[in-house]
Amino acid sequence: MAEIEIGLGKSARQGYSLEDVAIVPSRRTRSADEADLSWQIDAYQFEIPVISSPMDGVTSPGVAIEMDRLGGLGALHVEGLWTRYEDPTAVLERVAQLEPGDRAVELREVYSAPVDPDLIGLRVQQIRDAGAIAAVAVSPGSTETLLPHITAADPHLLLIQGTVTSAEHVTSTESDPLDLKYLVRRLDVPVIVGGCASYQAALHLMRTGAAGVLVGVGPGITSRTNAVLGVANPQATAIADARAARMRHLDETGVHCHVIADGGMATGGDIAKAVVCGADAVMLGSPLAAAEESPAGGAVWSMSAFHAELPRGVLTRVETLGPLERVLNGPSDHSDGHTNLMGALRKAMAVCGYESMKDLQKAELVITGRGATS
Amino acid sequence: MAEIEIGLGKSARQGYSLEDVAIVPSRRTRSADEADLSWQIDAYQFEIPVISSPMDGVTSPGVAIEMDRLGGLGALHVEGLWTRYEDPTAVLERVAQLEPGDRAVELREVYSAPVDPDLIGLRVQQIRDAGAIAAVAVSPGSTETLLPHITAADPHLLLIQGTVTSAEHVTSTESDPLDLKYLVRRLDVPVIVGGCASYQAALHLMRTGAAGVLVGVGPGITSRTNAVLGVANPQATAIADARAARMRHLDETGVHCHVIADGGMATGGDIAKAVVCGADAVMLGSPLAAAEESPAGGAVWSMSAFHAELPRGVLTRVETLGPLERVLNGPSDHSDGHTNLMGALRKAMAVCGYESMKDLQKAELVITGRGATS
Amino acid sequence: MAEIEIGLGKSARQGYSLEDVAIVPSRRTRSADEADLSWQIDAYQFEIPVISSPMDGVTSPGVAIEMDRLGGLGALHVEGLWTRYEDPTAVLERVAQLEPGDRAVELREVYSAPVDPDLIGLRVQQIRDAGAIAAVAVSPGSTETLLPHITAADPHLLLIQGTVTSAEHVTSTESDPLDLKYLVRRLDVPVIVGGCASYQAALHLMRTGAAGVLVGVGPGITSRTNAVLGVANPQATAIADARAARMRHLDETGVHCHVIADGGMATGGDIAKAVVCGADAVMLGSPLAAAEESPAGGAVWSMSAFHAELPRGVLTRVETLGPLERVLNGPSDHSDGHTNLMGALRKAMAVCGYESMKDLQKAELVITGRGATS
Amino acid sequence: MAEIEIGLGKSARQGYSLEDVAIVPSRRTRSADEADLSWQIDAYQFEIPVISSPMDGVTSPGVAIEMDRLGGLGALHVEGLWTRYEDPTAVLERVAQLEPGDRAVELREVYSAPVDPDLIGLRVQQIRDAGAIAAVAVSPGSTETLLPHITAADPHLLLIQGTVTSAEHVTSTESDPLDLKYLVRRLDVPVIVGGCASYQAALHLMRTGAAGVLVGVGPGITSRTNAVLGVANPQATAIADARAARMRHLDETGVHCHVIADGGMATGGDIAKAVVCGADAVMLGSPLAAAEESPAGGAVWSMSAFHAELPRGVLTRVETLGPLERVLNGPSDHSDGHTNLMGALRKAMAVCGYESMKDLQKAELVITGRGATS
Repeated sequence: MAEIEIGLGKSARQGYSLEDVAIVPSRRTRSADEADLSWQIDAYQFEIPVISSPMDGVTSPGVAIEMDRLGGLGALHVEGLWTRYEDPTAVLERVAQLEPGDRAVELREVYSAPVDPDLIGLRVQQIRDAGAIAAVAVSPGSTETLLPHITAADPHLLLIQGTVTSAEHVTSTESDPLDLKYLVRRLDVPVIVGGCASYQAALHLMRTGAAGVLVGVGPGITSRTNAVLGVANPQATAIADARAARMRHLDETGVHCHVIADGGMATGGDIAKAVVCGADAVMLGSPLAAAEESPAGGAVWSMSAFHAELPRGVLTRVETLGPLERVLNGPSDHSDGHTNLMGALRKAMAVCGYESMKDLQKAELVITGRGATS
Repeated sequence: MAEIEIGLGKSARQGYSLEDVAIVPSRRTRSADEADLSWQIDAYQFEIPVISSPMDGVTSPGVAIEMDRLGGLGALHVEGLWTRYEDPTAVLERVAQLEPGDRAVELREVYSAPVDPDLIGLRVQQIRDAGAIAAVAVSPGSTETLLPHITAADPHLLLIQGTVTSAEHVTSTESDPLDLKYLVRRLDVPVIVGGCASYQAALHLMRTGAAGVLVGVGPGITSRTNAVLGVANPQATAIADARAARMRHLDETGVHCHVIADGGMATGGDIAKAVVCGADAVMLGSPLAAAEESPAGGAVWSMSAFHAELPRGVLTRVETLGPLERVLNGPSDHSDGHTNLMGALRKAMAVCGYESMKDLQKAELVITGRGATS
Repeated sequence: MAEIEIGLGKSARQGYSLEDVAIVPSRRTRSADEADLSWQIDAYQFEIPVISSPMDGVTSPGVAIEMDRLGGLGALHVEGLWTRYEDPTAVLERVAQLEPGDRAVELREVYSAPVDPDLIGLRVQQIRDAGAIAAVAVSPGSTETLLPHITAADPHLLLIQGTVTSAEHVTSTESDPLDLKYLVRRLDVPVIVGGCASYQAALHLMRTGAAGVLVGVGPGITSRTNAVLGVANPQATAIADARAARMRHLDETGVHCHVIADGGMATGGDIAKAVVCGADAVMLGSPLAAAEESPAGGAVWSMSAFHAELPRGVLTRVETLGPLERVLNGPSDHSDGHTNLMGALRKAMAVCGYESMKDLQKAELVITGRGATS
Repeated sequence: MAEIEIGLGKSARQGYSLEDVAIVPSRRTRSADEADLSWQIDAYQFEIPVISSPMDGVTSPGVAIEMDRLGGLGALHVEGLWTRYEDPTAVLERVAQLEPGDRAVELREVYSAPVDPDLIGLRVQQIRDAGAIAAVAVSPGSTETLLPHITAADPHLLLIQGTVTSAEHVTSTESDPLDLKYLVRRLDVPVIVGGCASYQAALHLMRTGAAGVLVGVGPGITSRTNAVLGVANPQATAIADARAARMRHLDETGVHCHVIADGGMATGGDIAKAVVCGADAVMLGSPLAAAEESPAGGAVWSMSAFHAELPRGVLTRVETLGPLERVLNGPSDHSDGHTNLMGALRKAMAVCGYESMKDLQKAELVITGRGATS
């Protein structure tokens, strides 16, 4: 990877976002209905490579069940409103009324109710009872505290997700910092961890024994990580780096650790580009909040939007486009790329002549970022 | 062609759009009235290197006849409104009233009328009767079905045109996929195929025996291919790659297969740049819809704008600038580059000191895309 | 000069505009009042390196006389309104009322009055009578016709100026094309020719024996050459290339042919950058139209704005900022860079530690064009 | 450092602004409360690496005292309003009412009152009496005149600050130009000098014996140096170059001369990026004017905004966000990066796994400037 000198003796790499690149079709095409979008992680097989983001504006227990019915996976946050309120309906309605923008003050109030450990079990049970795969997410900082309750709730998959999550959280003052390597190996449930945005970070997360890593540090539309912290890595580069880590990890261990692009994808085209960059699956937030089933009427916000001292995200609102099924599988009446995301992924695969996700990862890319794509 | 690493081990090429480049005049000039814009494909000689796009908002039988009179070529789509309605006037008027934007729902209704094979013959006859060269376009997916009717109609030229068209459409489920190599060779009529946007794709299309290839995957203003599918190649790079394929094909076979830039050109300057990049001719859509003869009052849309499940285009409207003759040959009262397209191409040739299209392909280019061209 | 492949086997250079670059001060500074802006061309010495553009909205005989008084040079076009009308006041007032934009129709009417050869003599005499250096401009196409009258009028300097002017205008149909090499050598008056925008073009113009070359193909705000013809070269690159031609020409002949940047400079900063790129002097249009003495109240347009068949420019209007003396020498109350252009050039020279124009050409440049200059 | 040819034989470097880059977290994280932001210059130790800019809209004696209480440093300009007026309250209120934009005329009037040398002593005493570190700034042009008074006032630190300040101010007419090398060495008070924006300039300023150099030529939002003079160097590159000078100077002398990024930082993220580029500390202007203690109600302007002949800055106004303590240390209710600047710097340090400023300088950077950071 070429290093560019930005000043005498100080180098940086050139990063590329998904909107900087496009897929170049080559000499073969194929019919879209032959495209196979399935993937599997650990023992679980999915028809479509989509995980709904563990954000309260995106995934409710109901959305998780519907995601499962549609062949994908829904992830519920155990520190979200569904584990703080027995019935969060009224609270979600209040949030749905908020004007988009900085809503830390209002959200802090809503999230001041404590997490009720019993509700973790209840939510997992709700999803399991519907015959769906139950995946729950927890932040690294709360993992030690909530893990006993999560384990007791017995989900199929566990996500440990923070803005930046590392395999090695060094500390001199805390007696017992989170040691992901120890933690992941001792758990029976398969774990997906992230976010990360570099080769080294992804590789070390893979070495914890995680089944998958989430790639992306603040690329989503609700995030302000770059403005507040100066921290970012454009998503196409981050995914490609994680792909390189996956190959090395596979070579070292024989284990294929899944790369899941998390955030920064708004359209079916973005999803296809993420796959070509190296993603095995994608985690979607705001694009799925466009579903009628959206818990807060299209409002989306991240857990960092109401941080007590340093909020790093905004509340946004996306237009409702139809049932989740239609958002994912169409049909679409519009050409903005927001509806029929899986149809678009199938068609992108088809015009490149491929029939599986793994094949699509081989497609050629062009950098278009200088101007328009005309 | 330099590969750029966008992440560890994942490369992409830098692509350039027509607006990223400009022509640099050198040490000679010439008078514009000496510039020769003529070209020929197969047995047909044209005074100007322009084909009107087979879009219903651009080319009617009347426009095709007028294009011929002006020295160019008009291409009529056999799956368009003129072969679905004996008199599409009322239907075109209705489309002309539509607001620009996503109009899939309204267009689907208009196009729900089936193609009447007899009308294919009638339209070709209409154009032939006027003494004009008759060129018709068909999509790859309908080629097998409609080919007998097209052959019976006996056009001078056939265009097989899709968003992405390949020489090799692989399939496991369809009994008899479209084999362009076999098809093109068995036809008596010269065939132009596309779109394509890479060296390999263009080369393989040339090897089918096509007389010309259309270059451009979704660069036009009505297209949303990049947003919906993530698929694109900036047009300057796509044309230059096709030029390289033309040279190799010429070296291998002795046959000069014409490179026709399709889409992404709004002004006379864009046309000149496309030629310098390597185009032998250009296919124009929306720039020609600015003619008074425009079938739907300046409304333009592509066949992918009303796809049943995944529309990939919008309906746009361009301002009417005058008769087609004036749009092409001037005089112009404006300096926006939209009128007197051929006068501009002649002048561009003249300030570079060249007198033929083939010579203009040798002009020097500069990349201007960093900022304004001041 | 590195060539970049824009497609397989097709190269282009990366061009830079003046706004893409900035001057980097180094380890010395100097007082601005020591900065020496003088230059000389042929026998004529000037205190400031500014020529007012031969545009009717910029240079009247009165402006030429005032330019001389301020140490610069004013150039009057012999095909402009002052040689078509004995008193163009009313006509200029009419143009001053026009809305900015495409004004080809209105301008054609105003310019339909023929050039009166006697008025050429009268205008030169007017300027000479005031004790000022008289410089007149003529277009290449009218040079043969008007030269006898110009010669009779006996100006001190002659400018032969077109959008693109070459040393070699090839033709097969015209009996006697303009041969600049022959023409320039046979004239007694020193000649400045242009515009050009490449090393080869500048070198060949220098070899005609010209005293100076104008560099810039359509960079000004009134020009639409890039949109209409696709022809351009970003101004920083064009000037630097002409500087290389100047060095070669000097090496071959011992003659220093002056490089005059023409167009694309709006502020004092732009002028300083043009000098660092290699300009010996600058020709200014719209920045000088901001003077109270401006002939058409701040309206500016080029001779190509009313071309009979292919206009390639617009009429713009700049805000009046004060007397010409103030625009050039200050004082300024504003920090937009439009007033006190020479003070700014002196200060730029000072913060780089230089005291002459030739020294300033050695300053270091940085490319800033990726984002803001913060 | 790679040189890029912008024209034949004329080179430039590619510069990068802070918004062109971002910090890439790697395989370690740490808790933000372990992050140590302290630094020291000469004998003075500071808890936070922030100097308030010596601008009258930013630093009053009161702000300087509060900066000290919060662990930073406030710098008061000895040519500002506090040394021209015994009580500048009314004057500051008048400036606070001005509309943003070019305010040279109004500011000239306000600053027409002469500097009263006695007030210099009074202001220093005021700050000293509060037990705070007293730092004062003077422009290079006034240094000779005001130095006796400054020395008599006995501040702890002296800043010699101009838009461009060099170690070597050459002159032929002035009898006794400012010789920084001689001056800095003869003073007992530690001196910080600048601005500079290149390796050579920084190195020579370091060689004067300065304790620190200010890096930045006009990057702030109040500056128009680039528009007016064409002079600039993007801030990330300027800081990195100064860092290289610091390393060479350390190698040659054993002395670590502090690099202080001055201007062009609006958010906590920008500050973190500046540190990663090589800054030991930052000088902040407009971000601190957002404090309730701001002397002119959020209005900010530089001393070059009212230059008598060539103003090079505007008056801007920033929104008041809360007490200075909150702007620096939070808590924040917003995610725009303008509040809790030090909390953000701590968090950026933490997600990169570092615990000191010197360590953070080793973090990895990515260039994001092609498009959005998604």
